[in-house]
Amino acid sequence: MPHYKLTYFNIMGLAEPIRLMFAQAGVEYENVMISREEGDTTWAKLKPTTPYGTLPLLEVDGRVIAQSIAISNYLAKKFDMNGENEWEAVKAEELVQAMHDVRQPVRAWWKEKVERKKAELLKKLESDVVLPFFDRFEKLLAENGTGFFVGSRITQADLHIFNMLEWWQNNQFFSDVFYNHPKINAFIKKIANMPNIKNWLEKRPKTAV
Amino acid sequence: MPHYKLTYFNIMGLAEPIRLMFAQAGVEYENVMISREEGDTTWAKLKPTTPYGTLPLLEVDGRVIAQSIAISNYLAKKFDMNGENEWEAVKAEELVQAMHDVRQPVRAWWKEKVERKKAELLKKLESDVVLPFFDRFEKLLAENGTGFFVGSRITQADLHIFNMLEWWQNNQFFSDVFYNHPKINAFIKKIANMPNIKNWLEKRPKTAV
Repeated sequence: MPHYKLTYFNIMGLAEPIRLMFAQAGVEYENVMISREEGDTTWAKLKPTTPYGTLPLLEVDGRVIAQSIAISNYLAKKFDMNGENEWEAVKAEELVQAMHDVRQPVRAWWKEKVERKKAELLKKLESDVVLPFFDRFEKLLAENGTGFFVGSRITQADLHIFNMLEWWQNNQFFSDVFYNHPKINAFIKKIANMPNIKNWLEKRPKTAV
Repeated sequence: MPHYKLTYFNIMGLAEPIRLMFAQAGVEYENVMISREEGDTTWAKLKPTTPYGTLPLLEVDGRVIAQSIAISNYLAKKFDMNGENEWEAVKAEELVQAMHDVRQPVRAWWKEKVERKKAELLKKLESDVVLPFFDRFEKLLAENGTGFFVGSRITQADLHIFNMLEWWQNNQFFSDVFYNHPKINAFIKKIANMPNIKNWLEKRPKTAV
């Protein structure tokens, strides 16, 4: 088994789906969570040494992979979390990309400081992004019929989707939308109760976001 | 050989790297380029039928793949454009993702209508995104030493990078930055002169962007 080292900030963000993959696979790794607090120069020193000035990075026996989705696709192959054939693999990758696209408007809303603007962004996020997304995903779960998004067992797609939805649910964002999408609620419960995931959710470091 | 149908708007955007992959592979496909002109309802009708309300879509014998990078990764495997081993594959995917990240600040600048703001965004784009990006990519080309970004033959990464850089060069954006990065200039020339690429660049539909 190679030595895996995952480096990210001490938040969930882009790394948490990858941490969930390690947890589900039951694979040991070094989980480095660096601070971005003012006065802490760790990131300032590390940044110029990274391939693109970004985190997360995964080191595999010292060899570096950057870009969260490239890391996820790599580990999905290693951990057998890309479905059972090339079609399921591309569908899982497609869902991971789609979920990633949702992060951008979510981040814009999250970072907005002006109360009035923030409320407007939230309303627009709910109607233009979250609701269509929930409708599509509810339908996908109904069509697939296994409780997972692709095929008959867990893929990287499930963990990326679970990660975002669980964060929303825990923070009571979009509660009305959740209420009307029972299959999505059942999906979150199902994943949260898989033994390795449950164990990670209980023991993982508490972070601000 | 399956029937491939690629649907996108009548611009280069997210689909052009994929069109370049088809060209280089010499594989036939249906290249559907739809209009977004006012009054044209093609996209309005198509949008609700797509998996995420987005283009491009690739249909493979009628089965749909969404998300440009999932499409690219899928075709890279089919067309043998993902290097010679799993490490080269992940490095190629990493570069495709990194290039994709650059699109966002480029688009923000491109769409800005207020002249003063547009000029500010351009300056910030050049110093914060384009210059570090060129420095890193020049170094990568020097280290790899084959004229390609990964391994010893063309990968999807080369075509994604080529596509963006060639557009900048043709429009004389960031000319000073180009001037100081000879290996990047040589790379663009090399790819543009590969016979299948050259042929596509000559015959491809002229688009606004």
